[in-house]
Amino acid sequence: MSVAPDSAPEPLLAKSKTARATIAAMEEILGKQIPVLDGQGFLRVVDYMGDDGAIVQAARVSYGQGTKHTSQDRGLIRYLLRHRHTTPFEMCEIKLHLKMPIFVARQWLRHRTANVNEYSARYSLVPDEIFKAGIQDLAVQSAVNNQGRGETLPAHEATQLTGEMQQAAENAYALYLRLLNENNQRPDQQGVARELARTVLPLATFTEFYWKCDLHNYLHFVSLRADPHAQKEIRVYAETMVEILDKWVPLTAEAWRDYVREALTLSGEERTVLRRLLNGEKVAKSETALSAREWRALGKALGYDPESETYPTA
Amino acid sequence: MSVAPDSAPEPLLAKSKTARATIAAMEEILGKQIPVLDGQGFLRVVDYMGDDGAIVQAARVSYGQGTKHTSQDRGLIRYLLRHRHTTPFEMCEIKLHLKMPIFVARQWLRHRTANVNEYSARYSLVPDEIFKAGIQDLAVQSAVNNQGRGETLPAHEATQLTGEMQQAAENAYALYLRLLNENNQRPDQQGVARELARTVLPLATFTEFYWKCDLHNYLHFVSLRADPHAQKEIRVYAETMVEILDKWVPLTAEAWRDYVREALTLSGEERTVLRRLLNGEKVAKSETALSAREWRALGKALGYDPESETYPTA
Amino acid sequence: MSVAPDSAPEPLLAKSKTARATIAAMEEILGKQIPVLDGQGFLRVVDYMGDDGAIVQAARVSYGQGTKHTSQDRGLIRYLLRHRHTTPFEMCEIKLHLKMPIFVARQWLRHRTANVNEYSARYSLVPDEIFKAGIQDLAVQSAVNNQGRGETLPAHEATQLTGEMQQAAENAYALYLRLLNENNQRPDQQGVARELARTVLPLATFTEFYWKCDLHNYLHFVSLRADPHAQKEIRVYAETMVEILDKWVPLTAEAWRDYVREALTLSGEERTVLRRLLNGEKVAKSETALSAREWRALGKALGYDPESETYPTA
Amino acid sequence: MSVAPDSAPEPLLAKSKTARATIAAMEEILGKQIPVLDGQGFLRVVDYMGDDGAIVQAARVSYGQGTKHTSQDRGLIRYLLRHRHTTPFEMCEIKLHLKMPIFVARQWLRHRTANVNEYSARYSLVPDEIFKAGIQDLAVQSAVNNQGRGETLPAHEATQLTGEMQQAAENAYALYLRLLNENNQRPDQQGVARELARTVLPLATFTEFYWKCDLHNYLHFVSLRADPHAQKEIRVYAETMVEILDKWVPLTAEAWRDYVREALTLSGEERTVLRRLLNGEKVAKSETALSAREWRALGKALGYDPESETYPTA
Repeated sequence: MSVAPDSAPEPLLAKSKTARATIAAMEEILGKQIPVLDGQGFLRVVDYMGDDGAIVQAARVSYGQGTKHTSQDRGLIRYLLRHRHTTPFEMCEIKLHLKMPIFVARQWLRHRTANVNEYSARYSLVPDEIFKAGIQDLAVQSAVNNQGRGETLPAHEATQLTGEMQQAAENAYALYLRLLNENNQRPDQQGVARELARTVLPLATFTEFYWKCDLHNYLHFVSLRADPHAQKEIRVYAETMVEILDKWVPLTAEAWRDYVREALTLSGEERTVLRRLLNGEKVAKSETALSAREWRALGKALGYDPESETYPTA
Repeated sequence: MSVAPDSAPEPLLAKSKTARATIAAMEEILGKQIPVLDGQGFLRVVDYMGDDGAIVQAARVSYGQGTKHTSQDRGLIRYLLRHRHTTPFEMCEIKLHLKMPIFVARQWLRHRTANVNEYSARYSLVPDEIFKAGIQDLAVQSAVNNQGRGETLPAHEATQLTGEMQQAAENAYALYLRLLNENNQRPDQQGVARELARTVLPLATFTEFYWKCDLHNYLHFVSLRADPHAQKEIRVYAETMVEILDKWVPLTAEAWRDYVREALTLSGEERTVLRRLLNGEKVAKSETALSAREWRALGKALGYDPESETYPTA
Repeated sequence: MSVAPDSAPEPLLAKSKTARATIAAMEEILGKQIPVLDGQGFLRVVDYMGDDGAIVQAARVSYGQGTKHTSQDRGLIRYLLRHRHTTPFEMCEIKLHLKMPIFVARQWLRHRTANVNEYSARYSLVPDEIFKAGIQDLAVQSAVNNQGRGETLPAHEATQLTGEMQQAAENAYALYLRLLNENNQRPDQQGVARELARTVLPLATFTEFYWKCDLHNYLHFVSLRADPHAQKEIRVYAETMVEILDKWVPLTAEAWRDYVREALTLSGEERTVLRRLLNGEKVAKSETALSAREWRALGKALGYDPESETYPTA
Repeated sequence: MSVAPDSAPEPLLAKSKTARATIAAMEEILGKQIPVLDGQGFLRVVDYMGDDGAIVQAARVSYGQGTKHTSQDRGLIRYLLRHRHTTPFEMCEIKLHLKMPIFVARQWLRHRTANVNEYSARYSLVPDEIFKAGIQDLAVQSAVNNQGRGETLPAHEATQLTGEMQQAAENAYALYLRLLNENNQRPDQQGVARELARTVLPLATFTEFYWKCDLHNYLHFVSLRADPHAQKEIRVYAETMVEILDKWVPLTAEAWRDYVREALTLSGEERTVLRRLLNGEKVAKSETALSAREWRALGKALGYDPESETYPTA
């Protein structure tokens, strides 16, 4: 995560004194654009409320206890996260300013528990900014993941195709301006209303929005979107959000890694298989009720060859 | 609202007997596509729960009263809606299947209190369906509404421009197929993953989703989206939803028209002006704290010439 | 609103420097208990995010405009609130620490759009704090409002009854301790689990919680709970929240008073009546479709004698 | 789950024909009170929308596929639940009518994603119904669970204490009536307003409400509240809801048992321990970063003696 040298579009507020919980690492990045997607998009922390201490403070109201030594905070936060006591994590809040392609924003805004103010293409002219995929982004449809990508295309094919995509983007934006009759391209004619002209723009067009969210839902968001199954173009934003998490609430970030990101959930049937394996037994797939997909996933998680019909594999 | 003759894409379930509240007018349209946007899109009621009686039933739990005569239901529903006792209206639920352009879906899905399952263009091929604006849709930017449309363009200009829009849509879809390498257009080459190829499609591309919502939020949705300030392409869906409201919960629909759709809200300052007008006084704009926009809106609402500096206007 | 002299139960954090929006009037009250219900309960601002400027900032992202002169902020905020453009108000957040009787908390927590951490009586001992109604609180059931209070009881009756209520509270708390076997009251016996013992405590028992909410929902809350129809014991908290609103977001507070608190909403039928009155006509109740209740409310709002069968009343 | 013989307080609607998904097992219990807490409380299914097929139907819109063989539905539902694809489960809805003590309702209504209409004690007289704990309910505070119960008290102590609790409940209700001046107990005096009189009633007083919820949130609710850590008095309702789940959406119920109820989640550190155990190694607690509590929980889950300092235990 590097901050763009001259990225602040709005003058930073003069520093004020506050009795609110203040985090030095967050103050450092506040208001600065963090480039994403090779600098075509960005993420910017606009405001934040609360730190690890705010989670502990809220939890201790529940438990009817006053403030304790900071040394106990880590244990409490880990306990809360592990046992899905989620409400104390809702006591922290963050506000981001984001710029991303519309096809990413469409996935983003399916998360319903955030507050959003987006740029309106009914009200304002859409700038000439359309996502340019890099040649390393052009990959084939994944053979194992119906939603994802597999190997990248050969460079010469990718170069050809990204060129065509870029030309198409330019054509679309030119038609957009022509419909609006910007620069009086169609002399003596009138422009079409923005709300209709925008419909010719591609899904790769950039948009911007403010997005405000509590920490519990922020964790849920990054758990889903920093996952390898998420589309790469949203994952890079989510990974940046994980880096911000480390600055904002480091104890929570650590607990989230241990208990969510690196966690493994086993079904009832898988637990039965595990018990047998721990007993030193050999287990054949045909003896279990696991589907082929589940059998492979279990083997992978436990460190076996997932193509084997029997676990453990030597 | 006319129902397409052969519109049911899924065989209707055989009729079953139920003790649930059942509404004849809803059963008639259940599962049938109602064409919107000249049949390019549709709306289809997939399921519903509760009727006007369910609202009354819930309200009477609050009031600790048993069932009463149906004749009193109308009065109770009107009372609840007028006084914004919204929770009984949450006791009814509806599920729609919708097909609409992505630029409309983007507005639609900003409403966060509904349940949604949308077609995934990561998982499946996007069909060749892109919204074709009619020549009557091509209107200039409104001079009074920064978000809306004014007069339509002359027919020959509109014909020319819709032709260009349609050609651009065809080009975009052709590039989409080329990227996917459908029909082996790029012989001996591989297709690009769907999640990336789709980014060249325009915002006018159609999408589909299931959308489930309670009646209170349904009313809120149509109040905002069947409003003249809403974009025409979403308004036509919202107007269809008003027609469904009449079938689903006729007493609520009537109360909503009286107390929401046709209601007028006056600010504190406007109430002061109104008192003076009712006293038979003449009121000059300069005597009030109303902004120019507010003054005009008040005059229009009360039946005066909004351009006059003094009310009443003769 | 007076702040208790020595009310801070937690040491205030040392002042830090921040680039976040900071409000002097909020910093002054931060962390300090504001007594409510004669000091039996309290409200305390624990944290806040954003000011009037944050609303403007978010709205201007939607409109695609940069920062403007502060002098235009007031007009924009008024426009947003008047036209129910609610999302920019969601960009501010506040966190309160509250102590109130359970019967008030039950109403409070029906608002679902806030984050909450409440004291757990399963986990901790409930303190000996039960709401004592003052003799001025003992009023008869209202004759006109099925939910509310009318005139206060004669002082000697009220004194007698508040004495009985207090005695009952003491008895209940004594039984609670006895069940828990606090102080070994039941020698050689064991205490009952807290989660069961608490069930004998009255609804007037105090509880505490942290409550975090965005400004849009805060406004909605005070609109409902600072209303004369709300129960007095929640209204006093809501009125304190209105005073905090003035400190937090003064421009929004002013707009809320004009466009919500002092606003009047007229139904379609009432607008018809109003048009006739403005035309100088006399209107008889029997000529309208208004219910008796609606007729009276309209008369009251317009400054007529609500008992008259004809408006205007001389 | 047995249905009370003559429990329907409202006449069942005459059977109607519907094209909506209809479930025979649900129709059988529709409208009938299911007694809970020894018949002191109840749960009643008032309405439902959707079945297992509705989940599949919504998921297949996402995947762009039409209807398939029912035999594939089970696999799809299991896949969705396992991978936390939660939105299709939101496509089913249920409405319950519940009667429970207020201390249970307080826990219940912390779930924010449901629709609720509760009996209003401001508007109506509270009936003389206060939860009577059975002698088997009187248990000591748990030594291991700060929130829960341990062993039951000796019968003679429990009998004594339940007697005192019941007497206290009678006294509280008598004071409530006296405050209201029901039956003119305080001759020539007036009753106190209901909203204030109710404050003397204990938390064990019964309340009633309608509660409507989608299936995803219903599953979340029962996962938390049918858990052994939940208070017994809410757990008995949640267990009844599990039985209803089996009738409503049997494929989902089965998948929920396998992938949620009987699932085990291992943290990153626990996975490391597991890998070593599967390798046939002995692992000492001191070699790991697990807390004492985590070590015991892991041992228990894997079938070892949780008090041992080394796993596996012979």
